[in-house]
Amino acid sequence: MNTRLAAQIAFLVEADRLKTILRRTPLADGSRLENSAEHSWHVALTAMVLLEYAPPGIDAGRVLELVVIHDLVEIDAGDTFAYAPAADIATKASREQAAAERIFGLLPAEQGISIRALWDEFEAHATPEARFANALDRFQALLLNYRSGGGSWTGHGVARSQVLDRMAPVRSALPEVWPYVVDIIDRACAGGLISPDGDRPA
Amino acid sequence: MNTRLAAQIAFLVEADRLKTILRRTPLADGSRLENSAEHSWHVALTAMVLLEYAPPGIDAGRVLELVVIHDLVEIDAGDTFAYAPAADIATKASREQAAAERIFGLLPAEQGISIRALWDEFEAHATPEARFANALDRFQALLLNYRSGGGSWTGHGVARSQVLDRMAPVRSALPEVWPYVVDIIDRACAGGLISPDGDRPA
Repeated sequence: MNTRLAAQIAFLVEADRLKTILRRTPLADGSRLENSAEHSWHVALTAMVLLEYAPPGIDAGRVLELVVIHDLVEIDAGDTFAYAPAADIATKASREQAAAERIFGLLPAEQGISIRALWDEFEAHATPEARFANALDRFQALLLNYRSGGGSWTGHGVARSQVLDRMAPVRSALPEVWPYVVDIIDRACAGGLISPDGDRPA
Repeated sequence: MNTRLAAQIAFLVEADRLKTILRRTPLADGSRLENSAEHSWHVALTAMVLLEYAPPGIDAGRVLELVVIHDLVEIDAGDTFAYAPAADIATKASREQAAAERIFGLLPAEQGISIRALWDEFEAHATPEARFANALDRFQALLLNYRSGGGSWTGHGVARSQVLDRMAPVRSALPEVWPYVVDIIDRACAGGLISPDGDRPA
């Protein structure tokens, strides 16, 4: 086999491990935690279905590429909980940079650079496509947390203002969907799934 | 909430069930069976990485769209084993057509028609994009069956000629990858993971 194809296959086999990385978000039916591979698929489907709410002229194919690769670094770095303590958030960037070096480095050099550039674009919210993809990543988690009856919010004492902050990219990238997000957050507060802000620990 | 967005969200929540549909193919590490949602993600990543082997001028974004939606009907119809008895294969089309009616029918009408058309295109191998996507769907399963040490081949008495038939779309859509496929099949035969054709039940 030529060495180029061999490197590509090795990368694809390594990528399989993303199916074993668990998120804090459950499936909608609450039966188990979601893994990062199936999450990436679900966000891609969400991108296709909600594309009409994106800014005009957005490159739909590029959005899908960003979504497909956005979590690959978690194979080494793990999934950092969105509402994790500040110490975990602080080390997230360095852990993920090291993971990106190793994982995208499995590919033929120029292909690794090009796919790594997609990941950098996603992380930096650098383009309309990246901002849309980031917004969908957050919206999909909101949907599953709400549908599963609390998901990663319950038991972690997550407060209303924290969820609103986390969802801010939806407000700017999908303004037509924002009222729905606020409605879900309000219902989740009323149902005791999210703490009212007054209850948040100082 | 407007009824259009409500229908789109209902579809996305229903689609979450694809994460509970198990295939016969294990993960590469053999730890468990793969589900159809994470499989769809893995095929999408494979499409990005192996795009250079596709015919010139192929629409990469459309390939990703086809891959993302290609297994949604399994929510109702289940995953039909590629080497299933003829009776199961015979009912596959009608089960999947009914599933497509219901599932894509959850979307706003014109969007459901448009996404259903992608699924029809994939199923019919109707375009270069659909032929490439189908080839990747089969190649990804070969890779996992081989890496997991037999996967869905072992114990089902799957024969060399059956696997070669199943992989035929790779031969036409990714001719440069075909020698690698034959090499895997030969190694799997030599290792007892695939039956030599002489051993196949009549």
